[in-house]
Amino acid sequence: MIRFDSDYLEGAHPKVLKQIVETNYEQTEGYGRDDYTKKAVDKIRKVLKNEDVDVHFLVGGTQTNMIVVNSALRSYEAVICPTSGHINVHEAGAIESCGNKILTCTSMDGKLYLEDLKALIKQYESEDVPEHRVKPKMICISLPTECGTNYTKKELVDLYNYCKKKKLYLYIDGARLGYGLVAKDTDLKIEDIPNLCDVFYIGGTKQGTLFGEAVVIINKELKKDFRYYMKQKGGLLAKGRLLSIQFLALLDKDLYFKISKVAVSNAMKIRKALLNKGYDLYYDSYTNQQFVIMDNNKLKELEKEFTFFKWLTIDNKTVIRICTSWATTEEQVDKLIEEL
Amino acid sequence: MIRFDSDYLEGAHPKVLKQIVETNYEQTEGYGRDDYTKKAVDKIRKVLKNEDVDVHFLVGGTQTNMIVVNSALRSYEAVICPTSGHINVHEAGAIESCGNKILTCTSMDGKLYLEDLKALIKQYESEDVPEHRVKPKMICISLPTECGTNYTKKELVDLYNYCKKKKLYLYIDGARLGYGLVAKDTDLKIEDIPNLCDVFYIGGTKQGTLFGEAVVIINKELKKDFRYYMKQKGGLLAKGRLLSIQFLALLDKDLYFKISKVAVSNAMKIRKALLNKGYDLYYDSYTNQQFVIMDNNKLKELEKEFTFFKWLTIDNKTVIRICTSWATTEEQVDKLIEEL
Amino acid sequence: MIRFDSDYLEGAHPKVLKQIVETNYEQTEGYGRDDYTKKAVDKIRKVLKNEDVDVHFLVGGTQTNMIVVNSALRSYEAVICPTSGHINVHEAGAIESCGNKILTCTSMDGKLYLEDLKALIKQYESEDVPEHRVKPKMICISLPTECGTNYTKKELVDLYNYCKKKKLYLYIDGARLGYGLVAKDTDLKIEDIPNLCDVFYIGGTKQGTLFGEAVVIINKELKKDFRYYMKQKGGLLAKGRLLSIQFLALLDKDLYFKISKVAVSNAMKIRKALLNKGYDLYYDSYTNQQFVIMDNNKLKELEKEFTFFKWLTIDNKTVIRICTSWATTEEQVDKLIEEL
Amino acid sequence: MIRFDSDYLEGAHPKVLKQIVETNYEQTEGYGRDDYTKKAVDKIRKVLKNEDVDVHFLVGGTQTNMIVVNSALRSYEAVICPTSGHINVHEAGAIESCGNKILTCTSMDGKLYLEDLKALIKQYESEDVPEHRVKPKMICISLPTECGTNYTKKELVDLYNYCKKKKLYLYIDGARLGYGLVAKDTDLKIEDIPNLCDVFYIGGTKQGTLFGEAVVIINKELKKDFRYYMKQKGGLLAKGRLLSIQFLALLDKDLYFKISKVAVSNAMKIRKALLNKGYDLYYDSYTNQQFVIMDNNKLKELEKEFTFFKWLTIDNKTVIRICTSWATTEEQVDKLIEEL
Repeated sequence: MIRFDSDYLEGAHPKVLKQIVETNYEQTEGYGRDDYTKKAVDKIRKVLKNEDVDVHFLVGGTQTNMIVVNSALRSYEAVICPTSGHINVHEAGAIESCGNKILTCTSMDGKLYLEDLKALIKQYESEDVPEHRVKPKMICISLPTECGTNYTKKELVDLYNYCKKKKLYLYIDGARLGYGLVAKDTDLKIEDIPNLCDVFYIGGTKQGTLFGEAVVIINKELKKDFRYYMKQKGGLLAKGRLLSIQFLALLDKDLYFKISKVAVSNAMKIRKALLNKGYDLYYDSYTNQQFVIMDNNKLKELEKEFTFFKWLTIDNKTVIRICTSWATTEEQVDKLIEEL
Repeated sequence: MIRFDSDYLEGAHPKVLKQIVETNYEQTEGYGRDDYTKKAVDKIRKVLKNEDVDVHFLVGGTQTNMIVVNSALRSYEAVICPTSGHINVHEAGAIESCGNKILTCTSMDGKLYLEDLKALIKQYESEDVPEHRVKPKMICISLPTECGTNYTKKELVDLYNYCKKKKLYLYIDGARLGYGLVAKDTDLKIEDIPNLCDVFYIGGTKQGTLFGEAVVIINKELKKDFRYYMKQKGGLLAKGRLLSIQFLALLDKDLYFKISKVAVSNAMKIRKALLNKGYDLYYDSYTNQQFVIMDNNKLKELEKEFTFFKWLTIDNKTVIRICTSWATTEEQVDKLIEEL
Repeated sequence: MIRFDSDYLEGAHPKVLKQIVETNYEQTEGYGRDDYTKKAVDKIRKVLKNEDVDVHFLVGGTQTNMIVVNSALRSYEAVICPTSGHINVHEAGAIESCGNKILTCTSMDGKLYLEDLKALIKQYESEDVPEHRVKPKMICISLPTECGTNYTKKELVDLYNYCKKKKLYLYIDGARLGYGLVAKDTDLKIEDIPNLCDVFYIGGTKQGTLFGEAVVIINKELKKDFRYYMKQKGGLLAKGRLLSIQFLALLDKDLYFKISKVAVSNAMKIRKALLNKGYDLYYDSYTNQQFVIMDNNKLKELEKEFTFFKWLTIDNKTVIRICTSWATTEEQVDKLIEEL
Repeated sequence: MIRFDSDYLEGAHPKVLKQIVETNYEQTEGYGRDDYTKKAVDKIRKVLKNEDVDVHFLVGGTQTNMIVVNSALRSYEAVICPTSGHINVHEAGAIESCGNKILTCTSMDGKLYLEDLKALIKQYESEDVPEHRVKPKMICISLPTECGTNYTKKELVDLYNYCKKKKLYLYIDGARLGYGLVAKDTDLKIEDIPNLCDVFYIGGTKQGTLFGEAVVIINKELKKDFRYYMKQKGGLLAKGRLLSIQFLALLDKDLYFKISKVAVSNAMKIRKALLNKGYDLYYDSYTNQQFVIMDNNKLKELEKEFTFFKWLTIDNKTVIRICTSWATTEEQVDKLIEEL
């Protein structure tokens, strides 16, 4: 069985794993106070061309979103995301369990559009007794989105300028940041990101590490006592170096982007094949996730050899997600294309 | 200035107030362990023709919703309501601040429709890894709704049967229960309610008391340790008898329904006048709240003598809410009709 | 049966109740945006000789403590109180249910002593990895304490200076503030309080109102968006004027202190009688609460005519609390003394 | 520098690491639904000689405690632990941040004694209005304790019988379970544990894995929907197999106990040397943690070559913790003994 259902099927990129093995017997201080962590923070600042950011390492995506959002907001403040936002749909109510409401803008492609955001904010501003409602305070977008779509630099600039004007924090969930930034439908570069949001994270779990996400805090207001939140929510890993060592390996010699490119190039090969063979794409994605509308009979047949993630059902068709990752091989891709 | 903006503008019905004054110097045990509270519980059981329900008295609506929902749900369980539900819009995130997510069904008239509910539940049932999402566990509807609309007995029976089948609790927010039950567009009677839901409350604040809501718990699962939740959330009033004494007066000789009828009859008079004069109603309400689309110029003129609640803005028109209550006088109504 | 078990047995002082009755039919805006509330805020500022404080009205003590503490603290910050503090013992975990930890200093008489506080803070300052622990951020003391004891001006000045030095908020729970300030063992005056803490409340429920507490916020950091917290926790009363009208009556012509004095004078009469008759006092209280160690046989006898609060059990003796209030009559006191 | 400050200084036992490396390229389902996880659950059931337990894998100790306690308790229910309990002191308020209060029994050696527990429970049972307080519902003890002390089988049997009688859940924090069970001062065996508590965890992080703890749920009431809590609190690892693969290696051929024995044997060697050389031990520990009272001058000298955890300060002396682990070598121990 060849799996295309997600981008977290395998372990870690061999160079990442090698670093863990090689440092195994070293004794280091716990909880991210070791020298590897210092080095990894420096490395990330260098990659981002920004010395002022704070960097913290967490284990997984839901944990990261929960801690970032909860640490930024008071209980009556709300975070806004598109209806399909991971925090809204697939985190079992983690944000709410910490006390914050999520407000949503309807979105057909996973993106948050400025006009929708403005309309939502206007509603809240027009309340006579504003304290009867929550107070919007943070925007959370995914780059790329859960639907594989992307933001252009202009879109992000416009969103961020509006956020600054309205005193809203902009948070970017970068679980698949590499796969997004190497795609052909965005002109954003990683060093742009710290200039266009208040906080974001560089995803590791789906991008070549065993686990781990690197939170980058730009806005000074969000930096204070962040480690307290990490500890309180169970996110301060005892052997914190395991996280930083992996990111050191991942960011060394551009590995992060190199493997992202391979994954996306494989996805584009699949996309091309799908279009050639007359399949309809459900979202117009140029990243590592492809969403295709598949007749249930054809799907059944394919499932003899492949696994996919079933996104949604439309009558007797299914929208499936086909994911590539750093670990996807050309053979796997060719085999899939052959059977399509 | 004559106020029609809400149904909680005045104090209490004189018979209610009289009871508070007359009992003022009595010494009673605190926290609802006094004899008045026992009597009020008995009275409510009698009115509901149901001896098995638990009854508790709380101070206000948001507090009541927060305590009922939070006490019924574990942190990963969610409550479903129409988009316009009070818990979703006008409680400053109280439900979420206690840890629970609210899921919504889009509604144009404030009601929850069974088909929409079924579609939502189906989505959650079809998840491969259900624990990535919250688990729907409670439905919260308002009777009458915030839009002044009502449920028929058949509608409520169908909703409740579905809830039982799916092991969902049905909770009815009865902030304006009296104004709903006396309306001509429902055949529900108050003694039907305990048979058609798991928990509900009989509103006092908008229905003739100074403050106070009576929570009625039917489902045994929801009864356990309810007073702990009341205390923990600041809802256990020290002089608890103040709540029960008011409900005793309100339920004596059918006063609750008598004053509800007067309020609704006044609202119907206004409704008729509005329709006669060619105004467009925004919702089709037969309860004490009327929603009318008003030209902004006309509104400005009216606002010299009256106050209304501005529901929403449509271009150069405003949807206003006109509320009557137990305290509304015929003179006030006639004056309004004259000026319309 | 004559009740001495608490100071919230009756309704309201007649002058307070009269104001509620007289204003019953007025129409006012909801949620504390009415003119009575503005007047009551002004009145409290005048009484405190401080125009810069924010004033908000809430319904009860647990609600007030929960909202004040939770609004002031982030989730990893802790509040410190004596072991006997109301928030620690008798609020069913309200503070924790909102996410904050309570740290305690052992206290034999209900007071927080500076030396104990310093020792606690030192522990937290000496941690190598401080984020493994909560961060102390607020001190909560009761004035007078739950044991009837009091703070002198010097004691409060010293506590507050230490708090300022350590960037800790000082919060005073003033549920019985009047009964404390008129006692002979303190030189504090009400106008001193805003200069010696960051936030406090003037209790109403135990001091002559039907219900209601007036929160006074001095520290600017704690003022922001306080009404959001009130609403979110179910503390924003719909007919908000009910609270302010009661405080207007209570503070008119010094009524608050006049009735406090009567209550305390009655308590002192009881105290004197107890000492004369050879009873042992458990705490040395000069306020409206007296704690006396009573032989169980004697207690049984007294309980034929009186009720007391049983504070704790020591072998075959019981420490009982005898409470007077604004409503206690001389006859009741004389009768008790006779039977002692 | 040789580190003795904790037992989580190195990576993983080589056999554990080997398994991660060897399975790196396999594609498996995410979130613990893979076959390795099934095998690891089976293995643990076999080790425990109990087929009825549920087993779940989490990343770290604070996360585990937070999820276990929070999933077991309603918001008004409390967990009881000794004052030194990890959940009370070193988890930054994680339990409270999820809404639950911690009650403590004073303890001089880290153990919870039945008499103290009984006294605490009695207090809560004697309340007239029990809902003014939280309701004790769970006991949390560490085995071995944070002070290196241990429970005998008789002690645990007595505690558990009392818990069952009082309907309290007994939860055992087994972060160092192996180091405890191989110590000479307990007759407990791992297969006894499921018979003597409701839920516990087998620690990995300090016992040979890179990270990871295995929660074992015995009581059926605690099993329901546990994975929802894991996901909601950020504890459901995407590549869940990483956890189970490590536990498979750790439990294979008794490795867990073999390496525990080596660590404890090294600790005993240090203990003996300390006693021989006239040092005073602060706790009487037979597990991998030794607590010794050290003159500050001597400590300074030792710190040129070694690191220790500073437990507390007594005048000009310091209580230091000396930890051994599976990774401690004889050379390190001998070197330390030489310098003592």
